[in-house]
Amino acid sequence: MVKDYLDTNDFTKEELLDMVDLAIAMKKMIKEGGRYPLLLENKTLGMIFQQVSTRTRISFETAMTDLGGHAQFFGPGSIQLGGHESIEDSGRVMGSLVDILMARVDRHKDVVDLARYSAAPVVNGMSEYNHPTQELGDLMTMIENLPAGKRIEDCKLAFIGDATQVCVSLMFIASKMGMDFVQFGPKGHQITDGGLQVENKVDLLAIGQENCRVSGGTITISDDIECIKGADFVYTDVWYGLYDQEEEGASYLDVFYPKYQVTPEMMDFAGPSSQFMHCLPATRGEEVVDAVMDDPEHSLCWVEAENRKHSIRAILATLCPQGPRDAVAADEAQAVVDARMAKLGKLGL
Amino acid sequence: MVKDYLDTNDFTKEELLDMVDLAIAMKKMIKEGGRYPLLLENKTLGMIFQQVSTRTRISFETAMTDLGGHAQFFGPGSIQLGGHESIEDSGRVMGSLVDILMARVDRHKDVVDLARYSAAPVVNGMSEYNHPTQELGDLMTMIENLPAGKRIEDCKLAFIGDATQVCVSLMFIASKMGMDFVQFGPKGHQITDGGLQVENKVDLLAIGQENCRVSGGTITISDDIECIKGADFVYTDVWYGLYDQEEEGASYLDVFYPKYQVTPEMMDFAGPSSQFMHCLPATRGEEVVDAVMDDPEHSLCWVEAENRKHSIRAILATLCPQGPRDAVAADEAQAVVDARMAKLGKLGL
Amino acid sequence: MVKDYLDTNDFTKEELLDMVDLAIAMKKMIKEGGRYPLLLENKTLGMIFQQVSTRTRISFETAMTDLGGHAQFFGPGSIQLGGHESIEDSGRVMGSLVDILMARVDRHKDVVDLARYSAAPVVNGMSEYNHPTQELGDLMTMIENLPAGKRIEDCKLAFIGDATQVCVSLMFIASKMGMDFVQFGPKGHQITDGGLQVENKVDLLAIGQENCRVSGGTITISDDIECIKGADFVYTDVWYGLYDQEEEGASYLDVFYPKYQVTPEMMDFAGPSSQFMHCLPATRGEEVVDAVMDDPEHSLCWVEAENRKHSIRAILATLCPQGPRDAVAADEAQAVVDARMAKLGKLGL
Repeated sequence: MVKDYLDTNDFTKEELLDMVDLAIAMKKMIKEGGRYPLLLENKTLGMIFQQVSTRTRISFETAMTDLGGHAQFFGPGSIQLGGHESIEDSGRVMGSLVDILMARVDRHKDVVDLARYSAAPVVNGMSEYNHPTQELGDLMTMIENLPAGKRIEDCKLAFIGDATQVCVSLMFIASKMGMDFVQFGPKGHQITDGGLQVENKVDLLAIGQENCRVSGGTITISDDIECIKGADFVYTDVWYGLYDQEEEGASYLDVFYPKYQVTPEMMDFAGPSSQFMHCLPATRGEEVVDAVMDDPEHSLCWVEAENRKHSIRAILATLCPQGPRDAVAADEAQAVVDARMAKLGKLGL
Repeated sequence: MVKDYLDTNDFTKEELLDMVDLAIAMKKMIKEGGRYPLLLENKTLGMIFQQVSTRTRISFETAMTDLGGHAQFFGPGSIQLGGHESIEDSGRVMGSLVDILMARVDRHKDVVDLARYSAAPVVNGMSEYNHPTQELGDLMTMIENLPAGKRIEDCKLAFIGDATQVCVSLMFIASKMGMDFVQFGPKGHQITDGGLQVENKVDLLAIGQENCRVSGGTITISDDIECIKGADFVYTDVWYGLYDQEEEGASYLDVFYPKYQVTPEMMDFAGPSSQFMHCLPATRGEEVVDAVMDDPEHSLCWVEAENRKHSIRAILATLCPQGPRDAVAADEAQAVVDARMAKLGKLGL
Repeated sequence: MVKDYLDTNDFTKEELLDMVDLAIAMKKMIKEGGRYPLLLENKTLGMIFQQVSTRTRISFETAMTDLGGHAQFFGPGSIQLGGHESIEDSGRVMGSLVDILMARVDRHKDVVDLARYSAAPVVNGMSEYNHPTQELGDLMTMIENLPAGKRIEDCKLAFIGDATQVCVSLMFIASKMGMDFVQFGPKGHQITDGGLQVENKVDLLAIGQENCRVSGGTITISDDIECIKGADFVYTDVWYGLYDQEEEGASYLDVFYPKYQVTPEMMDFAGPSSQFMHCLPATRGEEVVDAVMDDPEHSLCWVEAENRKHSIRAILATLCPQGPRDAVAADEAQAVVDARMAKLGKLGL
């Protein structure tokens, strides 16, 4: 397996599904069993946030505590990546002071460089390019809520609205799994011509199509609502914030409203048992209305938010190095520790 | 018992006294026994601070470590309550990612709303309205330092100066306990006409009087120093900061100095064995002089500061949900965890 | 032993060497044995940073987790030392809420005052005056990498460049150990006339010379490169930042470059087996070139950075109070805890 969790495209379908199984088992162990899976006792996670975050930060920090370890928080401005000190040197030093790192970065290149130079694994906590921890949590949520009689490979996921990094990320994970993925969005905001495609000069669709070639999945991008028919999962994200510069004067409301607002009518159009998802935070009354978000039967967005924690716990447990366990060396060292503590006037171990 | 610790008026006298007993026992267990009461192992507290804090933040964070858990710190600006995302949605999500929350807020309404929507309990770490964790710590300090032969119900507590939220909070807890409570302060700064009363449009005195009806306590508010005669505890707080706008040009020094400064003479006037309290930080030389604060025999303010930690520990232990403990479910889940970890190339539990 | 770790000159050579032994043993215990030395279980470290820090902050926080305790981070602006509240009062209160404190301060006097009033020990995390945790890590690094057949007392340490607090600190620890210490730096930037000497009005060299009188070490300060001949360790630090005001218009590059840049040629001039050290962060291409920093055989700067964590762990274990351990008191208190928890409707210990 690769050292770092930068992009789900670096992992096999089987590896990702094993991580989901692990996540679901640890969730049950804690929530029903009342027992914590202490796989990372005394281990340290360093969390670098170049942007403010609520859900991602809490999820990582709680997950680390659940596993018996500790997370250090470095907020915006507290750790420079590539300022006075080169990112190579920062990565090399930080990677020797903690066991595992995560970073939410402005530029995907920074998290890639950090991972290259850090001996400790690096988890991508969101870049402008993609959001792979969101992906695993969303996959977990869909697997926990499969329609009766269906496997994940049989499901259709419809993303409504702007080609944000969450939209692109969902295309990655859905195509990896062999699902049918749809983006229902307006021209200029579709994966093939949206801000991520343009700014990154990466052929995003080609990555998804290569996944489909292996998995048997499909990808559809359209501004015709017919494309969402039969969707098992209807997903949306906020309409603004990432690519305001694209609007050229037109308000994002003019572009997306009302056609791309998720309403009970749109949910019905997708199908009677379609389930609603949202990465949150939502702007209620814009991309989704209250009746959809708060529908106790069809809205998955709250369990989806909680699953960030459960899925990130599995990523950390999977990737954090466990190190050697040499009992003879430990005993020898412990004897010296005790002797020196005694000499210094203190109790030993 | 209620889910949240927002206001001591939501609790019975017996419940509050049980929490004080718990606090005193845990203090002894750690400080004399050297053993930590690990009641919240691997549990997570989320701490939201809309204002900077020293004592409250350290007390919560240390208390959580003492109990075997972990506290996450969200400083001013890091978590919006009711900004882009509604407070309902934030509360619902955060309440699913941590086990218990605390919030120091600008507006009491925000901590109430947070508690309404969060499945996790919420502790009020101070609002403009009241300061219930300070109250429990102060009650604990008085109970640990009762005058010989007196019960808490027999004691008189005199607050000197401005009707701050600490003053109002002391009226709440003293009247709940059946004590004699006095505010010795100037007109315009008394509970019945002070800033809290005016801004909150709540009849604060009526709440205290209702407590007295049940408990047999009394409340006296006066600008005549005779009212502090016989006080077992003399308490003060800073003179400025909350309600500068009330002064209408007059300096707070003109209003309070020298009549309301706590001096050795005032302490003697209250009684030869009166003990001094202050929530800190103090402005030495304004509301209190060094000879009172640093009096080794009669000043309780240092032990009072330390008791913030001990009493908050009891609040957390009392309110944090312990959750189900199903050994069969835990064993089943653990077997899956171990199997998946092995498949992913790692050691299990 | 003294209560606080403010200055290595407060400790004996033997005490410092015992701490290094402890550090090396705990490093082996964790890195080879896979077992953590849980000497500070449930203990709390408060970390006060008046300036941003990466290495020092991560090292303290990870070290505390490794020892089974927890570190609280108070970033710039979050804790005032000597603002509205006197440093005496802050120290007294904070020292009762945590078990041990560290502070990185603007003025050495602040960390000294904090230590005077805090019951909890205080560790100096760097002042404008000196940097004693860096010193112990550097001593550890030299001891781990002694030239064949040499004791630490036989070694020569050459510092190249400006008389920063790291330079002065190295003079302290080298002279304490009985080493030969050299500063090769330009006039105006030598220990005897540099910014630290001038601003602190302390005779820094006299402290080092007194150490030499006891230890048999030597101190040489010169702008003649001959002085570095035979150095076992060649150390440098950045050229700017601390004393820009001294330059009087001349760029620091004009003062230091190229004479004081550490190059392969300078390393060869010092000696064929000279090893390179740097406290980091480095400005590559200014005080040192890539070929020296990245030399896998002679560069110690990366292991030196990691050793910050290992040596700080030893300082914390040595200085943090362990407190009484009275099993009878603990049992009595625990019985009360369990009874009160049961009465409050919860499980006990």
